[in-house]
Amino acid sequence: MRISELSSASAVSVGTIKYYLREGLLPAGERTSRTTAEYTEAHLERLRLIRALLDEGGLGIDGVRRVLAALDVPDPAHLDLMATAQDALLAESDAEHPDDTRARAWLASRGWPALPDQDPLPGRLEAAWSACERAGIDIGEAAMDRYADAVEQIARVDVASVPTADPAAAVHRVVVGTVMIDPVLSVLRLLAQRAVAWRDFDGHHGPGPGAEAPLSPPASENGSGTSSPPGTPG
Amino acid sequence: MRISELSSASAVSVGTIKYYLREGLLPAGERTSRTTAEYTEAHLERLRLIRALLDEGGLGIDGVRRVLAALDVPDPAHLDLMATAQDALLAESDAEHPDDTRARAWLASRGWPALPDQDPLPGRLEAAWSACERAGIDIGEAAMDRYADAVEQIARVDVASVPTADPAAAVHRVVVGTVMIDPVLSVLRLLAQRAVAWRDFDGHHGPGPGAEAPLSPPASENGSGTSSPPGTPG
Repeated sequence: MRISELSSASAVSVGTIKYYLREGLLPAGERTSRTTAEYTEAHLERLRLIRALLDEGGLGIDGVRRVLAALDVPDPAHLDLMATAQDALLAESDAEHPDDTRARAWLASRGWPALPDQDPLPGRLEAAWSACERAGIDIGEAAMDRYADAVEQIARVDVASVPTADPAAAVHRVVVGTVMIDPVLSVLRLLAQRAVAWRDFDGHHGPGPGAEAPLSPPASENGSGTSSPPGTPG
Repeated sequence: MRISELSSASAVSVGTIKYYLREGLLPAGERTSRTTAEYTEAHLERLRLIRALLDEGGLGIDGVRRVLAALDVPDPAHLDLMATAQDALLAESDAEHPDDTRARAWLASRGWPALPDQDPLPGRLEAAWSACERAGIDIGEAAMDRYADAVEQIARVDVASVPTADPAAAVHRVVVGTVMIDPVLSVLRLLAQRAVAWRDFDGHHGPGPGAEAPLSPPASENGSGTSSPPGTPG
């Protein structure tokens, strides 16, 4: 297809497509004349991926470039896929190297595998953890353990979703899934907070499911279907 | 303290502090002369919060303004705290209103409380979910359920961490914790993915813990302490 057709099919303007071509995010089409080139379904698919990473994945152009580079890793079957994909995502300029002693000690206490000294993840954890404390949000090691228990379940779903037969598809799933599923989990967290808070409210102020019962909507006496707990001003 | 002392104590430049004052993020100090003002520990604390939200929370100036406004909600004890705090965080211009039918149907099937039609969360979920699909990452309803089971555990920790006696502290915990803990969970997810992938690798290729056993570091035969599974080129 020509660039105008690629633009129509993707709902991305010709000017923006040319920008991605100049930035090297999108490979050049096959030149058919001095001023025209032919694009394929593969271009359309990559264009959709670029837009999803930018619009919903929260990445900038440099981040998209790193993700696409990770997708083009040669012979991924021979690599430690998870670590390689993450390294590609994390390869930002880590200007500051925080003291990651506490994070590494906590990771060791969990029994998660030790990471090499130059691995940036423990430092990232320490940075995010201490930023919470600076913002007045204390997370004790017990709470961190409970968060980690839950996140381990998430990671099991992540890892189980990685196709084993097709290395290129596996890289795609790991790299793109890591970026794109985080926003899904963020929204789920907000929804789950409301469900849990509502359940607690219901359980505390009237007959309702017990603390460990599965979440269910509170019985509505007026059928209004709003999200406010009973007795709360609307 | 004077603005220069506030700057030293917070490691934020005087120019940046003046910018936050102009933007209304930081309340004015008590004027002590035509050109000087006196600042308090409360200013220092708010300044640290602003920096944490910007640097680690990933918010822009408008997002910080919304968070600070939510912290200043009058009489928070009378409000549905969780929903109010979230509304403040979510009050961006939702230019597009995606069709949230699938997300609402899935939420209903989970038994989470029904949300009013104008609530933006189901639309946010649908937007993040369909963006995954556009990027080639399919999440079936079964996988979404498993993610939601895990996130419900996270939300239990969140809700249990909200202080019940002090409404202002409760608002702070909900609003700031929602923003600041997301980056912690993102890093934990990367660490947990490696731990799970390593465990699976170990379990698949040699003697190791069973699929449902707690994660533990694989026995290292050479004591190198690197993160690569045995047999993986370094």
